[in-house]
Amino acid sequence: MAQQHLDPTNRLAERAEPARPAGPVPAEALACYLRAQATEFLRALRLHRESGTGANGSSGSGVGDGSAAPVDAARALRRAARRLSGTLHTYQPLLDADWAEGMRPELAWLSGTLAMEHAYASRLERLLQALHRLSGSSAFPARRQVAAATVSATLPAPPAAPDRGNLTVGAAKAGALLDRQLTLARTRAHSTALQALGSSRFHAVADKVALLASEVPLRATADVTADLRSLAGAAEGRLADAVAALPLVTAGHPYNAEALIHGLSPDPAPHPQDAPWHQVRLLLRLHRYAREVLAGEDGPSGEDARLLTAGQSLDRHRDASEAAAAAAQAARTPRIAPATAYALGVLHADQRHEVEAARYAFQHDWRHRSVRPASAQ
Amino acid sequence: MAQQHLDPTNRLAERAEPARPAGPVPAEALACYLRAQATEFLRALRLHRESGTGANGSSGSGVGDGSAAPVDAARALRRAARRLSGTLHTYQPLLDADWAEGMRPELAWLSGTLAMEHAYASRLERLLQALHRLSGSSAFPARRQVAAATVSATLPAPPAAPDRGNLTVGAAKAGALLDRQLTLARTRAHSTALQALGSSRFHAVADKVALLASEVPLRATADVTADLRSLAGAAEGRLADAVAALPLVTAGHPYNAEALIHGLSPDPAPHPQDAPWHQVRLLLRLHRYAREVLAGEDGPSGEDARLLTAGQSLDRHRDASEAAAAAAQAARTPRIAPATAYALGVLHADQRHEVEAARYAFQHDWRHRSVRPASAQ
Repeated sequence: MAQQHLDPTNRLAERAEPARPAGPVPAEALACYLRAQATEFLRALRLHRESGTGANGSSGSGVGDGSAAPVDAARALRRAARRLSGTLHTYQPLLDADWAEGMRPELAWLSGTLAMEHAYASRLERLLQALHRLSGSSAFPARRQVAAATVSATLPAPPAAPDRGNLTVGAAKAGALLDRQLTLARTRAHSTALQALGSSRFHAVADKVALLASEVPLRATADVTADLRSLAGAAEGRLADAVAALPLVTAGHPYNAEALIHGLSPDPAPHPQDAPWHQVRLLLRLHRYAREVLAGEDGPSGEDARLLTAGQSLDRHRDASEAAAAAAQAARTPRIAPATAYALGVLHADQRHEVEAARYAFQHDWRHRSVRPASAQ
Repeated sequence: MAQQHLDPTNRLAERAEPARPAGPVPAEALACYLRAQATEFLRALRLHRESGTGANGSSGSGVGDGSAAPVDAARALRRAARRLSGTLHTYQPLLDADWAEGMRPELAWLSGTLAMEHAYASRLERLLQALHRLSGSSAFPARRQVAAATVSATLPAPPAAPDRGNLTVGAAKAGALLDRQLTLARTRAHSTALQALGSSRFHAVADKVALLASEVPLRATADVTADLRSLAGAAEGRLADAVAALPLVTAGHPYNAEALIHGLSPDPAPHPQDAPWHQVRLLLRLHRYAREVLAGEDGPSGEDARLLTAGQSLDRHRDASEAAAAAAQAARTPRIAPATAYALGVLHADQRHEVEAARYAFQHDWRHRSVRPASAQ
């Protein structure tokens, strides 16, 4: 194959591991972290390919059989790409400017592209689960397996009819409609991801990551340790400012009914209220990664665990927000039955209340952090 | 008129007021309370008739003009009827058995019949308000006046088109549908109430109340004061037992998503979970009235205010529960547009979350009472 020479996974095996220093010195923390994440990226990529899904898009057999390995590999790949991208962003002044500026959008493109299939699958799973909960059914639809099969599956599983045993006609029809629409979106995202993994653009990124695993292009600086702490502090400050602008007092009053305002708005983009929370989610993630760099091999502290919990509330906020939008979107499908539309309305409102619940959880998480953010001191 | 001789309102004016003792002695508290409520009943009835709506159902002119007087009179009538009925229930062993057993169902029939029109009007108001809130509109529909016109209006106002200026097509259509259905129900309830107020059955009740205003048929007992406290304690115990059976721990966790379970259930009576709360609402009311008897002219205490607040949370629970059911019922109307059904689904879920919010508020109210119920000591 023409692209064989670009494949960085084999190269990694020999070069990345020995390049990792035994124990990082503080000033070396950034380089050490970037090397470790690059190594992780390449390890995940190798694992992903070994699990059967070639980047060239060939239809392998024996994949999509429910094995967790390819799913884990795809997740690890996204995870490393996000960390590399975030670290390049926060610590850019310490790195070669041209290199960092060229690499970051490519990593963001990659993690964004790889995330889509998983996002559609988990959105469908969330909505079907909610439909079952709303139908008073404790049974779980037989979709978990399908939903969990992400980019790893070469061909998506044929859309399975949702288990309608415990659903009303409206809920069953709404479930089938969402299944159809989100499975189609997932299939497209799957193709896009496969194309991306087979593209020369991806091979260029992987090549750069392979180089990074052995050599980090640090810029000469007087005191790397001081600069590291200062840049991490700036990231924390950006997070604190964004959190301070959130309506946390309102969010702290249970059942404030804010999230469903505009639930029936004629505005086609009715939820600008979600945007600041999505922004905080991204800034919180950058703050967490910045702390990982400083922590070196110390591992996560209690504060890191609290930040992780707060971040999970914001993940839930984002997921519920997008699920609510998907239910509203499905309700605009022409010629659906009134019972289907009614079920989608209930589902939309349910997910908007999940949005509100996630905000409540986040303000609780945030308020109970022991360490105050820098700007709040 | 044939029923003129049964009309008790004039009789009251001369007899009830002088019969009221200057200050109740403890053992006399029950008789004093019943006389006062009977007097209040007759005063409200007189006021109601003076405001223009004859009990004979003649179509008076100049009523339903938005004046608050007839609405207040109707409310005062219901209020006194509820208190008389509740007191007869709690303190029945201290009263003439045949008399109390004969009178209580008649009072319950009366207050129930009179309550229906108001219930439909306020349900419509609640739902239209919610539709506006969900449409992100701060404007309030021009229905408040119509909704407030209760049994006092001889003829219901012609159904006004709701203000659709800020509503989507679906929300506007849902509002119009609810307006049509609940206005029809209100009109029927209005006729029923007028018929009731003109019936010989009502005149018999009013006659008995007029007698009660002057003479309370107490049963001879060794120690009325001790019995009063014991019977009030029993009412409090029934309340405490019913509250103890409520899922208060769950209700105390915000966003527990319990109230919307079964929101899409095929079960035609999907909310048996509401029944214990409705029951507590009634027992709390009986407990409040029982305390009023004991308080005599001391007036309400801080504990009474807290009980009132807790009761208001349960009123809100009941109102939201019935509004949610009305939205679900409207969605079953044949041949409605999908957009209408979608809006009704959102509305249903919104009101079920109001149910959940009311439960949260009640458990908070209850937990913060200073006096613990008898059975919890």
